[in-house]
Amino acid sequence: MKFDIESLSNRKVKDILQYKINTKTKPLGALGTLEEIAMQIGAIQNSESPKLKNPTILVFAGDHGIAKKGEVNPYPQEVTAQMIYNFIQGGAAINVFCQQNNIDLKVIDAGVNHKFDAIPGLINAKIAFGTKNYQDQPAMTAQECDAAIHKGAEIVAKTYNNGCNIIGFGEMGIGNTSSASLLMSHYTGIEISECVGAGTGLNSEAIKQKQKVLTEVYKKYKSAKQVNTLAYFGGFEIAMITGAILKAAELKMTIIIDGFIVTSALLAAHEKYPEVLEYCIFAHTSGEQGHKKMLDFFKKEPLINLGMRLGEGTGVAVAYPIIVSAVNFLNNMASFESAGVSNTTT
Amino acid sequence: MKFDIESLSNRKVKDILQYKINTKTKPLGALGTLEEIAMQIGAIQNSESPKLKNPTILVFAGDHGIAKKGEVNPYPQEVTAQMIYNFIQGGAAINVFCQQNNIDLKVIDAGVNHKFDAIPGLINAKIAFGTKNYQDQPAMTAQECDAAIHKGAEIVAKTYNNGCNIIGFGEMGIGNTSSASLLMSHYTGIEISECVGAGTGLNSEAIKQKQKVLTEVYKKYKSAKQVNTLAYFGGFEIAMITGAILKAAELKMTIIIDGFIVTSALLAAHEKYPEVLEYCIFAHTSGEQGHKKMLDFFKKEPLINLGMRLGEGTGVAVAYPIIVSAVNFLNNMASFESAGVSNTTT
Repeated sequence: MKFDIESLSNRKVKDILQYKINTKTKPLGALGTLEEIAMQIGAIQNSESPKLKNPTILVFAGDHGIAKKGEVNPYPQEVTAQMIYNFIQGGAAINVFCQQNNIDLKVIDAGVNHKFDAIPGLINAKIAFGTKNYQDQPAMTAQECDAAIHKGAEIVAKTYNNGCNIIGFGEMGIGNTSSASLLMSHYTGIEISECVGAGTGLNSEAIKQKQKVLTEVYKKYKSAKQVNTLAYFGGFEIAMITGAILKAAELKMTIIIDGFIVTSALLAAHEKYPEVLEYCIFAHTSGEQGHKKMLDFFKKEPLINLGMRLGEGTGVAVAYPIIVSAVNFLNNMASFESAGVSNTTT
Repeated sequence: MKFDIESLSNRKVKDILQYKINTKTKPLGALGTLEEIAMQIGAIQNSESPKLKNPTILVFAGDHGIAKKGEVNPYPQEVTAQMIYNFIQGGAAINVFCQQNNIDLKVIDAGVNHKFDAIPGLINAKIAFGTKNYQDQPAMTAQECDAAIHKGAEIVAKTYNNGCNIIGFGEMGIGNTSSASLLMSHYTGIEISECVGAGTGLNSEAIKQKQKVLTEVYKKYKSAKQVNTLAYFGGFEIAMITGAILKAAELKMTIIIDGFIVTSALLAAHEKYPEVLEYCIFAHTSGEQGHKKMLDFFKKEPLINLGMRLGEGTGVAVAYPIIVSAVNFLNNMASFESAGVSNTTT
């Protein structure tokens, strides 16, 4: 699937935005990162008065073959499906934060190992009942990977057509920090052992085991001379987010990037389309240790750093009001002239 | 003026809170700092289901004798009064952020060098028309300093009686980073030159001049063997915030601490009443360089670090939704049991 992503680097509106920001009743640069965010969103929307419309978080869920063995994850695979029900019933952290900040939340079954009845509020985009275990074979076929990318793009296009222009992604999938670690190592060139962390809460001994298991997997992948990395390591939710990110950038939506798993999907998106980064705001630094290195790879500083490591898009939802603040000061603050306030004496 | 501030360290509700936090549908500790904030507010309110009521920011404004000379500040002193009118008309950054986050905003004339007519929305607590210049004499008398502390406490008590249980403070006062630097050096023992920064936007040469001026002031203060440091360095808005912080802690309100100036008021409050820290949440790290060192002195990490250096309480207003998220997850998330989600296999 191809995407047409425009670079924003030459947008003339940036000069107008900079003047507008500089003449607000505050010392030059005194709103720090909020000024950068206002500039970025103005450039994305090609407007000196950008608006945030129908903010939405799409949570993609999928299961992972490796999780059945329990070698890399302290929670059983069933938790993925159980958490879907929790999302639908409104009891998860992401529900609480989306409700607080007026963010529309959609939950997508990208490939959970559970047969759901038709449930209002759950989007069925199931590729399969979980991925294969990449200890033995590729997590998915090339066709499945393409289907997931397509599906992610399709769901974003539909969200856009419903009037959304700012979007974030979340995920749920027991075992998916392992996929993200493998993708991270591949796309950043960082040694696999340095990409592995505690996930949902392994102790140091269990982390060592996870490192050992994933080092073996990565060796096998290398020796097999595979070319479709995303298909090999999975999962369905990650591939779907990769397609979703790329479509959102094509549609000139502002993209809010969550934590470790979502950033691994961005790494895959970025490899073919580096311009995608211009549409991304990084919400938070995850407590999962590899995430900081991913952010360093992109040379990005996120908005908050609160040691959260929950996934679900919770970093996006908690950081979202800061993005609203950036757009609000740009649109609603008085200028020195309009307020009759003296500017610097120099 | 005396304050009666209770330490929260032995509150039994903490065990109940910890259990409640640990059984939410998330890995142990996965909400990071939000969990600490939920615990702190629960302890302050002595409740496993704390509520945030009528959040309020009080912005205290005052003028500084030293600012008339223009040796330490790029903006003329008149800007303090002009910004008061901007606050009242709703055009300042703090207005925009308070409106966004449903925070009640009150503006207090603590000692601005301007005669205001009775303006709806402006609280008259004027001690004098600006402080004296501490290059020549103490900024205020001991009586004026006491009056300011009293007045700050009185305004907080009134806010509390109107149903507020979470409060933040902001300030406006051309020249007040100089007062804050002097107070910081005194209370932390850090060399005065290291406490001086760019304020509203000095270049490196002007910062050197500010360092030189304030080093002289500090020497003179030392040789004069003064005992009332807060009175000597001022200003009225800072002394009023000191009283406001102490009264808020006495009333068991949650206190949200803003940037460099407000933290200098907290340093003064903390010297006599170290328990006050247990009631404080630190909103942000200011771009003003000394602020980070103040936070290190208190061994505190604030919620956001966005390079903002505007004052007015803007750090509090922008960070506030994160505090709401902390209370909301505690009150509204499902537990493993209520949601039917399996806990760890270990």
